[in-house]
Amino acid sequence: MVQKSPPDATRRSEKSRRAIYDAALALVAEVGYPKTTVEGIAARAGVGKQTIYRWWASKADVLLEAFLDLSTQAARDAGAQPYTIPDTGDLAADLKAVLRATVDQLRDPRFEAPSRALAAEGVVNEQVGREFTAKLMEPALQLYVDRLRSAQRAGQVRAGIDPRIALEFFISPLAQRWLQYTGPISYEYTDTLVDYALHGLSPR
Amino acid sequence: MVQKSPPDATRRSEKSRRAIYDAALALVAEVGYPKTTVEGIAARAGVGKQTIYRWWASKADVLLEAFLDLSTQAARDAGAQPYTIPDTGDLAADLKAVLRATVDQLRDPRFEAPSRALAAEGVVNEQVGREFTAKLMEPALQLYVDRLRSAQRAGQVRAGIDPRIALEFFISPLAQRWLQYTGPISYEYTDTLVDYALHGLSPR
Repeated sequence: MVQKSPPDATRRSEKSRRAIYDAALALVAEVGYPKTTVEGIAARAGVGKQTIYRWWASKADVLLEAFLDLSTQAARDAGAQPYTIPDTGDLAADLKAVLRATVDQLRDPRFEAPSRALAAEGVVNEQVGREFTAKLMEPALQLYVDRLRSAQRAGQVRAGIDPRIALEFFISPLAQRWLQYTGPISYEYTDTLVDYALHGLSPR
Repeated sequence: MVQKSPPDATRRSEKSRRAIYDAALALVAEVGYPKTTVEGIAARAGVGKQTIYRWWASKADVLLEAFLDLSTQAARDAGAQPYTIPDTGDLAADLKAVLRATVDQLRDPRFEAPSRALAAEGVVNEQVGREFTAKLMEPALQLYVDRLRSAQRAGQVRAGIDPRIALEFFISPLAQRWLQYTGPISYEYTDTLVDYALHGLSPR
């Protein structure tokens, strides 16, 4: 009993880690970010508080990792490679594919409540907003920057366009519909965003 | 003392209404939407609870009106006609003007904290989100729809474009930068959004 074989220990540790992620996401969805505590996460996960502090420095760190893990899984379940945008040479098709996967992710019930709780906290708590945007959103935004730069090299996007601004035509309307209920979300909608953004609103 | 002349009564009533708006906005900014109560608003405004219930059915109604009033004032202070988009015949110039006024409004410190508190509640409370979007945002969005339809009639926007989707290129990136700290907000930025959206990202 004293000397566990490494595979057992790894499995047990992986099981604890998963239980802690699940507890953190469930708790933040139920009571919101301010009332979520390391103690509460530990109690719900059935582990000691010290187990959490051995791996993470704060509740923000636990939640950050739990969300990264959730996003990875949700992307996989939506049939997408997490943290990639395809580059087939057809920019419109690639953007439509990644946005359809994002639509699926936004509709995933596991994702909905905890993501809303965290986004809501970020709106009123600038530190949380900036930290989670930097760590959860910026890596995804960088993929769009890279894909748009590749399209610029291929002559499919005008040379003068700033990709960091242009990418917002693909993600911001979708984010606002999801966050603020300004309209329904569908594949047809995100396909339309891509067509409008690439070709522009004014006649050619 | 019993019979007040109508002008006095109107002034007193206007003063109470203003005090109630100010109290409601200050309170929601400080404690958030869930902990804001009609009792709390009344106490802070120095009026009886019944005074509030004489004019409004619920705290949501008080806040809704307080925000409408705030938006009107903020737009005026930003030098814009509230609830209008100019139609000079130059679509790009008109959109840039209204977006610059929106930038000023988003930077108005009176607007910042209560608007964030309300937006955050809307993210996690679908009923609040839908009601305030319908009553506070939709009338503003309709102005964009009308302006884009006018541009379609003038041949400045392609006939096949759905104005309700197209308008999101102007408002959603700005809203996301403001709500989620995904980037800085400036006149140069909103001017760029207008140019990119009208001309499109791909070469012409």
